[in-house]
Amino acid sequence: MPRVVIIGAGFGGLSAARALAGADLAITVIDRTNHHLFQPLLYQVATAVLAPTEIISPIRHLLREQRNAEVWLADVRGVDVAARVVRLHDGRQVDYDFLIVAAGSQSFYFGHSDWALHAPGLKTIVDALEIRRRFLAAFEIAEQRGAADPLTFVVVGGGPTGVELAGMLPDITRFAFRGEFRRIDTRRTRVVLLEGGARLLPTFLPSLSARALDDLVALGVEVRLQAKVTRVEADAVCLGSERLAADAVFWAAGNSASPLGRTLGVDVDQSGRVLVEPDLSIPGHPDVFVIGDLAAVPLAAGGFVPGVAPAATQMGAVAADNIARTLRGEARRRFEYRDRGQLATIGRRKAVAQFGRRVVTGAPAWLLWLFVHILYLAGFRNRLTVLIEWAYAYLTYKRGARLIAEDAAWLADARAKRETPRPPA
Amino acid sequence: MPRVVIIGAGFGGLSAARALAGADLAITVIDRTNHHLFQPLLYQVATAVLAPTEIISPIRHLLREQRNAEVWLADVRGVDVAARVVRLHDGRQVDYDFLIVAAGSQSFYFGHSDWALHAPGLKTIVDALEIRRRFLAAFEIAEQRGAADPLTFVVVGGGPTGVELAGMLPDITRFAFRGEFRRIDTRRTRVVLLEGGARLLPTFLPSLSARALDDLVALGVEVRLQAKVTRVEADAVCLGSERLAADAVFWAAGNSASPLGRTLGVDVDQSGRVLVEPDLSIPGHPDVFVIGDLAAVPLAAGGFVPGVAPAATQMGAVAADNIARTLRGEARRRFEYRDRGQLATIGRRKAVAQFGRRVVTGAPAWLLWLFVHILYLAGFRNRLTVLIEWAYAYLTYKRGARLIAEDAAWLADARAKRETPRPPA
Repeated sequence: MPRVVIIGAGFGGLSAARALAGADLAITVIDRTNHHLFQPLLYQVATAVLAPTEIISPIRHLLREQRNAEVWLADVRGVDVAARVVRLHDGRQVDYDFLIVAAGSQSFYFGHSDWALHAPGLKTIVDALEIRRRFLAAFEIAEQRGAADPLTFVVVGGGPTGVELAGMLPDITRFAFRGEFRRIDTRRTRVVLLEGGARLLPTFLPSLSARALDDLVALGVEVRLQAKVTRVEADAVCLGSERLAADAVFWAAGNSASPLGRTLGVDVDQSGRVLVEPDLSIPGHPDVFVIGDLAAVPLAAGGFVPGVAPAATQMGAVAADNIARTLRGEARRRFEYRDRGQLATIGRRKAVAQFGRRVVTGAPAWLLWLFVHILYLAGFRNRLTVLIEWAYAYLTYKRGARLIAEDAAWLADARAKRETPRPPA
Repeated sequence: MPRVVIIGAGFGGLSAARALAGADLAITVIDRTNHHLFQPLLYQVATAVLAPTEIISPIRHLLREQRNAEVWLADVRGVDVAARVVRLHDGRQVDYDFLIVAAGSQSFYFGHSDWALHAPGLKTIVDALEIRRRFLAAFEIAEQRGAADPLTFVVVGGGPTGVELAGMLPDITRFAFRGEFRRIDTRRTRVVLLEGGARLLPTFLPSLSARALDDLVALGVEVRLQAKVTRVEADAVCLGSERLAADAVFWAAGNSASPLGRTLGVDVDQSGRVLVEPDLSIPGHPDVFVIGDLAAVPLAAGGFVPGVAPAATQMGAVAADNIARTLRGEARRRFEYRDRGQLATIGRRKAVAQFGRRVVTGAPAWLLWLFVHILYLAGFRNRLTVLIEWAYAYLTYKRGARLIAEDAAWLADARAKRETPRPPA
């Protein structure tokens, strides 16, 4: 029986696995973690609204009824496309007849990987918990110091993730913390959003970029456009000669494709994405498909398919279909991206959405965002508790997930290590 | 204004702080973590029913309306009772006029602190997540090995924590995992509960110990009494000459009092508890009180006040009252323990309870347990989501919190470190 190996169980990999349900194939889904992550809500874990378990589901639970699929928790280190073998972190190798690489992307620090120590990104549950921990711990430290200066948090990157993250923080400092601190005034906290380009949300229409800017300013975020970060330190962000002191820095400035793409022996673009054929296979290897954020798929209108969940889901279905067609001796189909529109939430009752040339803003866009995200959590069982958490956060302005799991000595130790970092390996 | 320092915001410390609300005092509550933990439900985090955030609340949130109290996240390393100073992990010192030490207890490994590496206890959120991670990861590893032998989990200690933990595990392996693994049969998983003494739940009536044993066996737990652990290794527990191979070992065999008790310069019992005066102060230092699990308080009928949440809560109120009385120039009162009974849950529809000589078992005791715990979560806002999680787990037999946050390479690294441990410091 032919064996299909799928690397990554994000939206793309999971979609491909599900599309092959019932096929006469042996499918092995390999993921670094045990869970599928509903990444669009990850910033809500970072900002103490939701618990991590509310936005994940174990991959093997999602695929339990699909008898032709098995799930492995392993880290793929490389692919040998000539030998048709996938190499794992512990030296094991897995053979395949067809391979779907859906390994996604990771935070990109403009080539300065040492900045990661000072400015966690937001790609995994571990990342989100690190941001939550640093944000909450900064107030604990300031309270004990009795600091007169307001705390400053810097979010780097004005795409959807940066906007969502920055937009949530003032609500916490102004409302959720109300009355809880004795020596500092958390309402004076500064949240600074730095965007290197000329406008926020660059993939949206310019009118929505302007609206997002106004909304963020109304929420209390200081937005700086054309702000090029030249250096990140333990307690500051440098913008050329300007040094912006920061109690914590969060990174949402860019993604690079998984390094796995470079092990396939085919051309990649400058962010490491694999240039795929119209059927999503790679040049010279029709048995290997690349989908999702790792694939560079040209659009007829110019540019590339965006790195969003609906695109990955669509690609997963097409790659799976092309494997099934190949096994039946049929011709493969081309991938055609269907743009479902874009949505970005900004904060309480504020969001922007566009569907072709139609735009929605403010409370209607925010309600639409809520509706779409609850709908897409389907397949998860967590919708009811998520609704309760949202209602609680909305009505009371409180944050239910303000946990720092680690103790004071651990936190002090982690902080000391960041302040005297080792050179990057 | 006199300053009261309270070390620890568990049931005892929080109760003391709240009892001093409105008093003309400056209160500083110092805790190693940022949260009050509802410890009776910690085993439900370890067994993937509840999220950590559902059983915690930030201490400063609980005390936000108490204007005379401030909260510090810090680790207390010692007390100088002569100088009236508390020493913190970072070298800072805090002066006090009155001190309430409510630092609790920690897992006790019979003097073999190196066993902690192989057998996590269940005292903190970090502990619970470590148990959850090891339990879930063991199945992931076995699935990839295609292991023919069933997995074995060993729980050491037959008190309430060990019974609760062991009783939850078979439900997961038999029902929650149903259909999810391809190469192993999780229904064959062994759960072994080791108790060194002659019966489970030694603080309960013997008839309830017998009932708990029957209930656990019915749930599929192998219970071994008079089983003295002589050594714990990375993959085994030794009982004299017998070596019991284990895929993970969890420790619930004993508590020792916080080492802080020994820094007070007064007598402690063999488990490190401080022998207090009838007013809960320590001999020779009427300005220092010790309460909760750290206090050894003799009972008129013989023995000592048990280390349970209601006892800590009662002591907190009395220590606070004695400070208030001292400031008013009144005589102090003696602490009198009011026994509210004991409850231990064993598993699905199984629990035991005793109130004086009255006992309740089976489903009625289980419903009572549910009712009492939901009631005591009051003051937390998490009751509604907890109810939903419980209903979900009960009705579907599923576990909603089956998250391993860390990735495969991290897990392999952590495992390798446990298998080649360093000698204890």
